[in-house]
Amino acid sequence: MPIDQQVLTNTKAERIRRISELTNRKHRQKAGKFLIEGPQCVREALTWQPQIIQDVYVRTDGADPDSPIASTALGKLAGEAMEERIHVHKMTQEVEHRVSHDAQGVFAVADLNSCRDLLGRVPQTPHPFLAAFWQMRDPGNAGTVIRSADAAGCDAVVLVGDCVDIFNPKVIRATTGSLFHLPVLAMDERAFFDLCRERDTTVLAADVYGTEGKPPVSLPDLLRNRELVEGSKAVLFGNEARGLTTELLDECAMSVSIPIYGKAESLNLGTSAAVMLTTLAMSSRIETMGSR
Amino acid sequence: MPIDQQVLTNTKAERIRRISELTNRKHRQKAGKFLIEGPQCVREALTWQPQIIQDVYVRTDGADPDSPIASTALGKLAGEAMEERIHVHKMTQEVEHRVSHDAQGVFAVADLNSCRDLLGRVPQTPHPFLAAFWQMRDPGNAGTVIRSADAAGCDAVVLVGDCVDIFNPKVIRATTGSLFHLPVLAMDERAFFDLCRERDTTVLAADVYGTEGKPPVSLPDLLRNRELVEGSKAVLFGNEARGLTTELLDECAMSVSIPIYGKAESLNLGTSAAVMLTTLAMSSRIETMGSR
Repeated sequence: MPIDQQVLTNTKAERIRRISELTNRKHRQKAGKFLIEGPQCVREALTWQPQIIQDVYVRTDGADPDSPIASTALGKLAGEAMEERIHVHKMTQEVEHRVSHDAQGVFAVADLNSCRDLLGRVPQTPHPFLAAFWQMRDPGNAGTVIRSADAAGCDAVVLVGDCVDIFNPKVIRATTGSLFHLPVLAMDERAFFDLCRERDTTVLAADVYGTEGKPPVSLPDLLRNRELVEGSKAVLFGNEARGLTTELLDECAMSVSIPIYGKAESLNLGTSAAVMLTTLAMSSRIETMGSR
Repeated sequence: MPIDQQVLTNTKAERIRRISELTNRKHRQKAGKFLIEGPQCVREALTWQPQIIQDVYVRTDGADPDSPIASTALGKLAGEAMEERIHVHKMTQEVEHRVSHDAQGVFAVADLNSCRDLLGRVPQTPHPFLAAFWQMRDPGNAGTVIRSADAAGCDAVVLVGDCVDIFNPKVIRATTGSLFHLPVLAMDERAFFDLCRERDTTVLAADVYGTEGKPPVSLPDLLRNRELVEGSKAVLFGNEARGLTTELLDECAMSVSIPIYGKAESLNLGTSAAVMLTTLAMSSRIETMGSR
């Protein structure tokens, strides 16, 4: 599909107004579309889920029909989109900024339900490694943890209970494209524990306190348990402010805490998840970590 | 020092305007003061550096002179401040919001130079463990990495070259009080490498690419090097967008990369620092990690 030589210049155009409304959840659901901002996220979506992308918009240097695309990198992205037979539109910086100040010259509009279907495929791995988050509310955190779970080679991210909408543009930006790399499932508490039971997956609660009967195991001690480290496991992280409830902790096989060697009380959700998932991933792949 | 029974109600008062200006670096430097927002940060400052705090402001339930402090937790903080002979002022929520929407009922005004002196004390540990950041620009990242370095038991954070101002209220909030727990030094590249040389501290570059002659060592491989893990070390992290320069990489003993098992390109600065510092801290304290 060729590129539109016409440059979109009207910041008040109906099409542009509608796209700018995709920052709002209700409008996304009504339109059945969502927004992907920035070269990295658009490139990852084009590479891994091209079928979900409906239109790509790239910034030009000016408003004339023959205005060149603003940079070589953006031109390359436009070319990749055209190869996938995706409609590419040129726009002025003013139009871009009417939609987003975080697009760095390019955004895409994608089909919400197709993407949700792709993300919702339960991994068929017999012994999955899952990163699960209960009532995660902050968009930046959600993006960061999806990226960390991707880096750690998790088979899926599971959003348990009432979590932030992953089609929020802030979430997508913070994933830097990882949203298009692995399944991101959403389910309630019951369905999550049922899934783990079916797959023989041990659920570890990331929690510094544990419960009365079950004090937390320190992460370095957990890493010595080869059977657990090498087996199928899910790590369940709690809400940013309230952590996990006693009921949820009781359903987990054990609580695991990251040791604190200084005066800080704890790590935040984003950094805890990265430490927990990465160390489990590294330990499961090598005989020993740090042994002589 | 008793609490002022009078409640500050005038959002246009000179005193309040001046405090609200402390969100701006130039005003902080001119006034020689900075702002500490929120119960956790104010509490940690009161506990570890009470001598830097000049005034504490707490929210009341109303504007009458006998209006109670808005919560038991805030009342307790006010009591702790008074025990330290710090002047405590009551204020309405309107006055609080004129200064900050992130204060959760309490903020403190502190002396910039006294705090800088306390933070600037080079640790006297013979074999320090340092977390160093070159040209770190994002306030949220700065706060997060100071918190992670604190949790990992680092002896100091070193800000190398032109970094974000750590007295930016966003930085302080993101440290959740860790700013008052450990030295945070600022110096140029030369001074940093000189300090490490003097202390026999091995400088590891956190970098996924390395240089032509020196490819990066994978973190799990590094953790097997007991001499290095148990010895004095500094990890140097690069700028959020550009990483480290070849010149800086050449000055480091080696580059270390966190293994990526999925499709993500990398981790972000905040999560990389947490993973690198925590795994080094855990490994230096135990014989083996994850061994049978």
